[in-house]
Amino acid sequence: MHTGSFSSRTVLAMDTLNVLDFLDRIVSLIKQENVLTPQETKVVEYVDPEQLKNKIDFSLTEPCANLDELEALCKKVVRYSIKTNSVKFHNQLYGGTDFFGLGATWLSEALNTNQHTFEVAPVFSLIEMKIIEEVKKLIGYADGDGIFSPGGSISNMYGMILARYRRFPETKTKGLHGLPVLVAFTSEAGHYSLQKSAQWLGIGTDNLIKIGTDDLGRMIPEELEKEILSSKERGCVPFFVNATAGTTVLGAIDPLDKIANICDKYDLWLHVDACYGGTLLLSKNYQQRLGASHRSDSFAWNPHKMLGAPLQCSIFITRHNNILHECNSASARYLFQQDKFYDVSYDTGDKSIQCGRKVDSFKLWIMWKARGLSGFQKLVDNALDCANYFKSRIEATEGFRLVQREFEATAVCFWYVPKTMRGREEDGEWWQKMNNVAPAIKEKMVKSGKLMIGYSPLHHKGLCNFFRMITTCHPVATYSDMDYVIGQIQQFGEAL
Amino acid sequence: MHTGSFSSRTVLAMDTLNVLDFLDRIVSLIKQENVLTPQETKVVEYVDPEQLKNKIDFSLTEPCANLDELEALCKKVVRYSIKTNSVKFHNQLYGGTDFFGLGATWLSEALNTNQHTFEVAPVFSLIEMKIIEEVKKLIGYADGDGIFSPGGSISNMYGMILARYRRFPETKTKGLHGLPVLVAFTSEAGHYSLQKSAQWLGIGTDNLIKIGTDDLGRMIPEELEKEILSSKERGCVPFFVNATAGTTVLGAIDPLDKIANICDKYDLWLHVDACYGGTLLLSKNYQQRLGASHRSDSFAWNPHKMLGAPLQCSIFITRHNNILHECNSASARYLFQQDKFYDVSYDTGDKSIQCGRKVDSFKLWIMWKARGLSGFQKLVDNALDCANYFKSRIEATEGFRLVQREFEATAVCFWYVPKTMRGREEDGEWWQKMNNVAPAIKEKMVKSGKLMIGYSPLHHKGLCNFFRMITTCHPVATYSDMDYVIGQIQQFGEAL
Repeated sequence: MHTGSFSSRTVLAMDTLNVLDFLDRIVSLIKQENVLTPQETKVVEYVDPEQLKNKIDFSLTEPCANLDELEALCKKVVRYSIKTNSVKFHNQLYGGTDFFGLGATWLSEALNTNQHTFEVAPVFSLIEMKIIEEVKKLIGYADGDGIFSPGGSISNMYGMILARYRRFPETKTKGLHGLPVLVAFTSEAGHYSLQKSAQWLGIGTDNLIKIGTDDLGRMIPEELEKEILSSKERGCVPFFVNATAGTTVLGAIDPLDKIANICDKYDLWLHVDACYGGTLLLSKNYQQRLGASHRSDSFAWNPHKMLGAPLQCSIFITRHNNILHECNSASARYLFQQDKFYDVSYDTGDKSIQCGRKVDSFKLWIMWKARGLSGFQKLVDNALDCANYFKSRIEATEGFRLVQREFEATAVCFWYVPKTMRGREEDGEWWQKMNNVAPAIKEKMVKSGKLMIGYSPLHHKGLCNFFRMITTCHPVATYSDMDYVIGQIQQFGEAL
Repeated sequence: MHTGSFSSRTVLAMDTLNVLDFLDRIVSLIKQENVLTPQETKVVEYVDPEQLKNKIDFSLTEPCANLDELEALCKKVVRYSIKTNSVKFHNQLYGGTDFFGLGATWLSEALNTNQHTFEVAPVFSLIEMKIIEEVKKLIGYADGDGIFSPGGSISNMYGMILARYRRFPETKTKGLHGLPVLVAFTSEAGHYSLQKSAQWLGIGTDNLIKIGTDDLGRMIPEELEKEILSSKERGCVPFFVNATAGTTVLGAIDPLDKIANICDKYDLWLHVDACYGGTLLLSKNYQQRLGASHRSDSFAWNPHKMLGAPLQCSIFITRHNNILHECNSASARYLFQQDKFYDVSYDTGDKSIQCGRKVDSFKLWIMWKARGLSGFQKLVDNALDCANYFKSRIEATEGFRLVQREFEATAVCFWYVPKTMRGREEDGEWWQKMNNVAPAIKEKMVKSGKLMIGYSPLHHKGLCNFFRMITTCHPVATYSDMDYVIGQIQQFGEAL
């Protein structure tokens, strides 16, 4: 039998001191390299994957790195990583972090615990409950339950599993064997996680019916009803409708009220994927865009998107009281002992598909404590205001063209038409050429390190590649940041 | 239309400076309150849930908290949170964190990005790939693929979904409709996440057959084969076997080689849930306990358990090359554009069930860089050595009794027999009384703040509540820490 190398506390203590020094170095590095305020540096220092392998020593062979070497390595990691805290980053539905949230997450990671029981997470259990209570109010649920999940895809899957369970509770024990074909619905612009949910939960992606959208990218309720009826005629059982509040590309918000009417009529579970748009609930000026949210059965919101909570921060809420526990509980006796000396209703982990669960509630709680709803509203209003300004600049600037005439979340989608293509007949060939413009400009912007914004086609609308400009709450954007984006794209597009 | 409150960079900058100050305060607080080295403080300052609501102002109403108030709040959060970095914490399969990992996670959280594409995570994409490559070597897979997931439950679900997909690839599009009953197997000591996986994936918990275990808690291969045959006789289709390397309570390791023979014979997918025991692969002295791991089809390991990577850090690996992508991909065109200017095989996010995915690889990479396999081995050996010493003390000390004669991971399970119960006839009544001993001592230890270790019954073995003592790599344990546990339990048990 091996005998331990650390026989006394002395060795341990020395080791610990040394490692604590690493933490100080990391904090200094974050400051020196302006990780949190990289406004004057490149948003990206682009290097090809194969070349990047030569810039950083990724190998894990010994000898080990000492503190100086580790620090140098981390400096390189910063150098070649994307500066999402930059005002030049508009590439994803998330952006920079709220530093209040970041401080909170540094603390909760240092406390290194799990959200599953009150026993190991007394404070964080109560914090999670409090946030869920407040989010229920925001949505307008009189009742209900909720849980933090590791992201929007899994939050959406929670919606679908609860819908499946409500309709066929026996699936928990018996599985789907012997059941008719179950059918779920989302719009053609719904997020791909709905497809993955349909696959994992045994429904099958063919049985996730994609409903057509209008010119703003919103689900057409009449088409939903038609598809529900048609699926019933085929002998299938519709059970779940996903409405999106803030689609991934156009930021469209499905007409929740009309969809809720249909779900009522056919007794279908209505889930709202508000991972992106849910943040609008924080502003009195925009919350009516999600007006009928309270009529849904479940709701997913990612504060790590527009609101800037550090990744990951996703909340799943249902307006039904006990179903989350009934559906998901496994009653493991080693963890959720019923003979504990405290009120075990505070052990909330058995509602989750996870066992160990990271503390994601604390960062949002600290952000909320520090800013309040009024502070959140200011940030949201500013993001929308900048998006609106950006849209007006697109409309007013030669060579730019909007994809959608209105935007509902903060996504403003547009084409840039190079000078040589302006005023020409816009035939198939022209559009084929247009399809290459966004990728070509994207390459230039990334390689210059001056800007990052995303592009996408929308095949179901027959639209070729266009840019998607996103503003978020952090870093707080200004009109001049918006002007900068326009100016950069003009420069990159000049030579095309 | 609302006009923004932040019209100039000045306001933003002031706000940013203020918030950056919060980060400094958090780091100071972590030091002042000994969050990382709480060896001299209570492991828990217990307060009942209802009382705790009065100790901390959980409300989210305005006025907002200023920096001083936030700091005071965070201090209370620390005070009433569990000190998992304490040597008195042996309550879960995880414990304290490796500070190298903690520093890394502070940095990656500051960089706030997503693991889904090379575009937004160039460095972290390559780091994830590197770790997966090294873990494949540890397991002994010549080939394969992998992904970081938000925890062991989801890693196990990855195993089951791949098995389902390999057997019935059409389930991706068609779902489970029309298929025979699919049957999965795990031991009666397998983790409850297998149950939850069976439920979510449409198999049903009744169709997760629980195989009996031997006196050390290991699956009995002969019984597995019997159940496979019996399920076939019933017209079911067996498709998946979960073997556990480190069961949750006893830490038992199923006989992987014999189980692999059976899986070969019946062409079943073999998944190894090594979330707990996988860390043994890091030591040459113990890796043979997971000797036949390379014969499995997939493997789940949580470095956030025994190894002390900050929560969450879980790795799923399969030895098959393309199945992870084939099974899970949805090819979203807004994210995984195929017309990017770089080699898009570095965009690995479509293999995942998630879209946004937290950077969990970096902390393990830094830990590995800093310690190397030899450093990991020392930590693992020390944890096992302490567990062994603890076991010998249990055997030698009056009033203590082992539950299992050998341990295979680091769990040492035992009863404490109060003085008044010693030497009595051990009839039904006696054991019923014993069932109350662990909860009673647990209440005392928690309320004293001097110790936290878990307890559990094992109903399938007819065993009443006993203690489960866990040693992990962090904080580095010593023999005297082990003696302390024995001494404390004696004191708490004295008065019973």
